[in-house]
Amino acid sequence: MLEIYSKNLENAVNEIAKLPGIGKRTALRLALHLIKSEKEDVTLLTERINKLKTDVCCCKQCFNISDDELCDICANPKRDPKTICVVQDIRDVIAIENTNQFKGVYHVLGGVISPMEGIGINQLRLQELFTRVETGEVNELILALPATVEGDTTNFFIYKNVKEKVQTITTIARGIGVGEELEYADEVTLGRSLVARMEFDKAYKK
Amino acid sequence: MLEIYSKNLENAVNEIAKLPGIGKRTALRLALHLIKSEKEDVTLLTERINKLKTDVCCCKQCFNISDDELCDICANPKRDPKTICVVQDIRDVIAIENTNQFKGVYHVLGGVISPMEGIGINQLRLQELFTRVETGEVNELILALPATVEGDTTNFFIYKNVKEKVQTITTIARGIGVGEELEYADEVTLGRSLVARMEFDKAYKK
Repeated sequence: MLEIYSKNLENAVNEIAKLPGIGKRTALRLALHLIKSEKEDVTLLTERINKLKTDVCCCKQCFNISDDELCDICANPKRDPKTICVVQDIRDVIAIENTNQFKGVYHVLGGVISPMEGIGINQLRLQELFTRVETGEVNELILALPATVEGDTTNFFIYKNVKEKVQTITTIARGIGVGEELEYADEVTLGRSLVARMEFDKAYKK
Repeated sequence: MLEIYSKNLENAVNEIAKLPGIGKRTALRLALHLIKSEKEDVTLLTERINKLKTDVCCCKQCFNISDDELCDICANPKRDPKTICVVQDIRDVIAIENTNQFKGVYHVLGGVISPMEGIGINQLRLQELFTRVETGEVNELILALPATVEGDTTNFFIYKNVKEKVQTITTIARGIGVGEELEYADEVTLGRSLVARMEFDKAYKK
């Protein structure tokens, strides 16, 4: 075990090491870096971290993170509110936004149905999604959940509950990643990518 | 570039990403983790980080980190104040302490002489070291600086300045690491380990 000869340093290291992916040694390196940093820089860091809890809230419509009641995406009149992309997590919103391929809005579930982890339908923002599509004004619901058993379960649950009220329900394509070699793809992915094969000219359409 | 749709989140990510070894993506993952954490946990984290700047100081004797004027090692009457181990950094103190092989005290230089990085003798706690040995009461000075050109330069500079006042000046052994294969060691290390060969029975003495 790492013995540290300062109670204050040890306390800081223990708290930093609680962050995901950061072990004791990395936490010590970061803490020693902070000790050597300027006081103003450390104060700025901690102020901005505290603001994450005080000033950042959830968009009341899509549950994306937001500084205001409505997030920048929901509040943007150029985005199409009739196309909703359902994702698991805020990080997925950021990932999809960075593709520049989507001009609709989002719905962040906050997870997927997983009895193993004790996540049932009441822990997710499923009811809020059903309320959003209740109006009958949603043209397309894109299910962009992870390609896991839990993701598929959640997909089917949503599909069952909204199929009467939404014109089109789609799910993002599963297949061989761009730049990926076929020989290294697993059989299930390769099999699905054959079943879901596309007409050549459509596949290369932008 | 990672676009983030919340100014507060972006600010926090930018500050976290200034920490060594943490990129934008990791910073985002940490910030989103903090958003989901309990407010008390985040407050505790930031309080303890701030304490690193307000409540941790330097031991006025050896420049190790300390919560008080004298660090736990210097203040411990069981440690031998006549054996001083000179190290570059606080992390080296922790590393040596964890070997449980050293019962003397330390002197933390704060770096090594490196004209390339603009670190001269005045940026290091060399004068403070010379003052400590000035009394003539130091039996052994162990130089435990890195095995680099800069480390060697610093070693020679210290040696030249203290050789009249200290009985024994030693430097930690350079050689093949325990558990290391000879064929993978570099030539300089292997060569030095031959030159500095030890009598068999001494090498295995505890």
